[in-house]
Amino acid sequence: MAVPVESFFLDPEAPGTLQARIQQMVAEEILSGRLKPGEKLPSTRRLAAHLGVSRITVTLAYAELLANDYLTARGRSGFYVSQSAPRPAALPPAPAPGQPVDWQRTLARRASGGAGLRKPRDWRRFRFPFIYGQPDPALFDHSGWRQCAIRALGQKDIDTLTADQHDADDPLLVEFIARHILPRRGIRAGPDEILVTLGAQNALWLTAQLLLSPERAAAVEDPSYPALRDILAQTGCRLLPVPVDGDGLPPEAIPEGVAAIFTTPSHQCPTSATMPRARRRAILDRARQLGAVVVEDDYEFEMAYLKAPLPALKSLDADGRVIYAGSFSKALFPGLRLGYLVGPAPFIAEARALRAAVLRHAPGHTQRTAAYYLSLGHYDAQIQRLGRALAARREEMERAIRAAGLEIAGAGAHGGSSFWIRAPEGIDSARLAERLARREVLIEPGAAFFSAGSPGAEAARHFRLGYGSIPRERIREGIARIAEEIAAMRTEG
Amino acid sequence: MAVPVESFFLDPEAPGTLQARIQQMVAEEILSGRLKPGEKLPSTRRLAAHLGVSRITVTLAYAELLANDYLTARGRSGFYVSQSAPRPAALPPAPAPGQPVDWQRTLARRASGGAGLRKPRDWRRFRFPFIYGQPDPALFDHSGWRQCAIRALGQKDIDTLTADQHDADDPLLVEFIARHILPRRGIRAGPDEILVTLGAQNALWLTAQLLLSPERAAAVEDPSYPALRDILAQTGCRLLPVPVDGDGLPPEAIPEGVAAIFTTPSHQCPTSATMPRARRRAILDRARQLGAVVVEDDYEFEMAYLKAPLPALKSLDADGRVIYAGSFSKALFPGLRLGYLVGPAPFIAEARALRAAVLRHAPGHTQRTAAYYLSLGHYDAQIQRLGRALAARREEMERAIRAAGLEIAGAGAHGGSSFWIRAPEGIDSARLAERLARREVLIEPGAAFFSAGSPGAEAARHFRLGYGSIPRERIREGIARIAEEIAAMRTEG
Repeated sequence: MAVPVESFFLDPEAPGTLQARIQQMVAEEILSGRLKPGEKLPSTRRLAAHLGVSRITVTLAYAELLANDYLTARGRSGFYVSQSAPRPAALPPAPAPGQPVDWQRTLARRASGGAGLRKPRDWRRFRFPFIYGQPDPALFDHSGWRQCAIRALGQKDIDTLTADQHDADDPLLVEFIARHILPRRGIRAGPDEILVTLGAQNALWLTAQLLLSPERAAAVEDPSYPALRDILAQTGCRLLPVPVDGDGLPPEAIPEGVAAIFTTPSHQCPTSATMPRARRRAILDRARQLGAVVVEDDYEFEMAYLKAPLPALKSLDADGRVIYAGSFSKALFPGLRLGYLVGPAPFIAEARALRAAVLRHAPGHTQRTAAYYLSLGHYDAQIQRLGRALAARREEMERAIRAAGLEIAGAGAHGGSSFWIRAPEGIDSARLAERLARREVLIEPGAAFFSAGSPGAEAARHFRLGYGSIPRERIREGIARIAEEIAAMRTEG
Repeated sequence: MAVPVESFFLDPEAPGTLQARIQQMVAEEILSGRLKPGEKLPSTRRLAAHLGVSRITVTLAYAELLANDYLTARGRSGFYVSQSAPRPAALPPAPAPGQPVDWQRTLARRASGGAGLRKPRDWRRFRFPFIYGQPDPALFDHSGWRQCAIRALGQKDIDTLTADQHDADDPLLVEFIARHILPRRGIRAGPDEILVTLGAQNALWLTAQLLLSPERAAAVEDPSYPALRDILAQTGCRLLPVPVDGDGLPPEAIPEGVAAIFTTPSHQCPTSATMPRARRRAILDRARQLGAVVVEDDYEFEMAYLKAPLPALKSLDADGRVIYAGSFSKALFPGLRLGYLVGPAPFIAEARALRAAVLRHAPGHTQRTAAYYLSLGHYDAQIQRLGRALAARREEMERAIRAAGLEIAGAGAHGGSSFWIRAPEGIDSARLAERLARREVLIEPGAAFFSAGSPGAEAARHFRLGYGSIPRERIREGIARIAEEIAAMRTEG
């Protein structure tokens, strides 16, 4: 029996090349059972004419379906659904409604309800996205990445791509982190002191799980990265926020009894303050006094386009007291989900075992692609390119902010991609953000960065302006709109 | 100053194409500071002659280095290290030894020391690897996967590849799981009832974390998947092992007071027993009586090449009481690290929040590649191919096992890729495995699958023989060696 050509429709909205969509259309007809084994398909000429595409496109789609045994070709008589074409099992009827489980009572714990940072998922639709931490397609090194990803798909890397590595990491990536990335932070580490993680989020989560418990206390900077507070809260530990100053975390303010100190010395998150060298030594002394571990989140050290950053706090660590978390999210891109932990071997061994229980290892292809990107020199070249673009944007940001009369409360000393802004007294940045969103401007209100105990109105005056995702030529207009809205809010009083 | 051509050496052992290795060699010389800005490189002709490679190869490598600003070209006078070439910071001295942290006391918890399954990492060196759960390069659909991976690297998918998706999954992958995979297991689920995980390991881990606590108890099959017991132990819950029979988990033996029941109805792990339909209903009745949740691990349903598997236990679930864990490790490959959870929306929302805290989301490229692989029909074609190869191997396994006089204690009714073998009384399969490893044969001793409370000698008689990674033509010889070693052990008494 021949299938009428009229029964085929291409969804004009569907993604993919024409060839892929035709292949998909025929495969779906077969898998759904609408096309039966032995049925004859329209000729490539007829189907091409019906769909309004070129015949070669249909021919190539049929060839793929032949190779995958969806179709068979019978000489000149045409294409047929293969007798051994893949077919799904028939569906059973839906079960009758039963006695629904009460999930309120059934869950042993909850993970939702954290502060997080609620970022609009549709931020690309805004003309003036002063957001932080998303990649800019205009700055993405697509060709370099693509080249390395394709290389990592090669025959020689099949084992890295496909095999279950249990608790092991890609040795090539670990080697390049050790030889190439850590030395520029002043850190020396061997393979047993490095763990590849699913991004810095995963690195901080593993660390918090191993160091904290409901019986222990952690010191955290105030303000700080909201997702970190969520991670710490999930351990059940006592959370002790320590207000930061213009030099970051003040060591003398770290309270007695803490087991772990979480800090961002390079660029305090979100104020961008850089911790001076003397204070770094004082933090280590204080930690030694307390018997505490220091967790250093070095989340954007690559964005040092103004001057060289100080070596990491970890580079001063003589006791093996510092756990260092790094990320590829800023220099490469966050969708990669790759980061790393550096620490003493006994700690890394436990973090490795915990990671193995939670997820085993980062996908092999992802790790190997990053290793190639590093080893071929793309990573360093990309950091330079990013730095040049960010330097130009930063200059424009500073000029526009000054012109608009806004107050910079914090700016990264060696670079970065954000400013920490303090609005005039009485301005609530959450309200400001809402008003600005209606004018195509996105900003990040400051309150979410502060602990619950910090003074509400003062916290709410702050907001973060990221310039990692906004084109330089839109910066002036965007900043002007922010200033206008602030002025309007003050007038409305 | 010109750099002497003699200072360049290509490591003959290094991986990669010649062009990539030359590019890497020059980039490393620059990054290490051995080549300084302004220094002149050897001409492409001279370097090619020195390295014994074609000139075009050197020219292409130089072109990449030019594009990345490692080199500059000065008309006809040649190539120079760029003045703005990437350079790492100088290394500070190593810190003096301090007061080492006592990690025994510092860790709040330990993750190491689980049972796991210790599999030799060098299993490919063995001629007769009767192991389970590793991909066979000979059966891997390299070209189909590569094609989809390259497509997912395209311009149109840049956002999926690069962006931080916070807690969200690739909608295309979720759609194909819902429309294409779950229906063949009899499961209907919407996007808010599906979560993409980092493999089945991650799916089971998230589930255990949400359902269990030190105050709760879990029923687990005995024997069972050792990594599952590790996952459950990490929640601090009370672990109640329930001995399985030839039909899998017996409902009446599930003790009072359990909050969650972990089961593998399709193919009990490791005995391969299939749970009959009536018993599946009885499991759900028992769970309802106990107010417990059932966690169904459907880890190898795609390997049903002998007959269609029964619909999943989840398909009978009228109460929203079953959490279903699926994996792409068997049909695709474990290095992919992709799996999924299906459950009621309130549960999935919590699992999503927990996953976001732990790792955010699976890498975008990985998810999109799998979505293409599914949507273009490769997945179904690959399952058929795998099934044909495994069916042939299974026949050979059965023939060889019968010829060798070994006892099959369990074999998957609809397929699978392993047999559960019982050695004669008094044989310790761990000792057997050691002896066999010296004869190039790998088997998986049974004791690790059993709970601590099960009878030691009886447990130790068992072992698993996987045939997913061994070529068909080696099966007979491998099984014969196992029988010979068993006979030798009995003689030695």
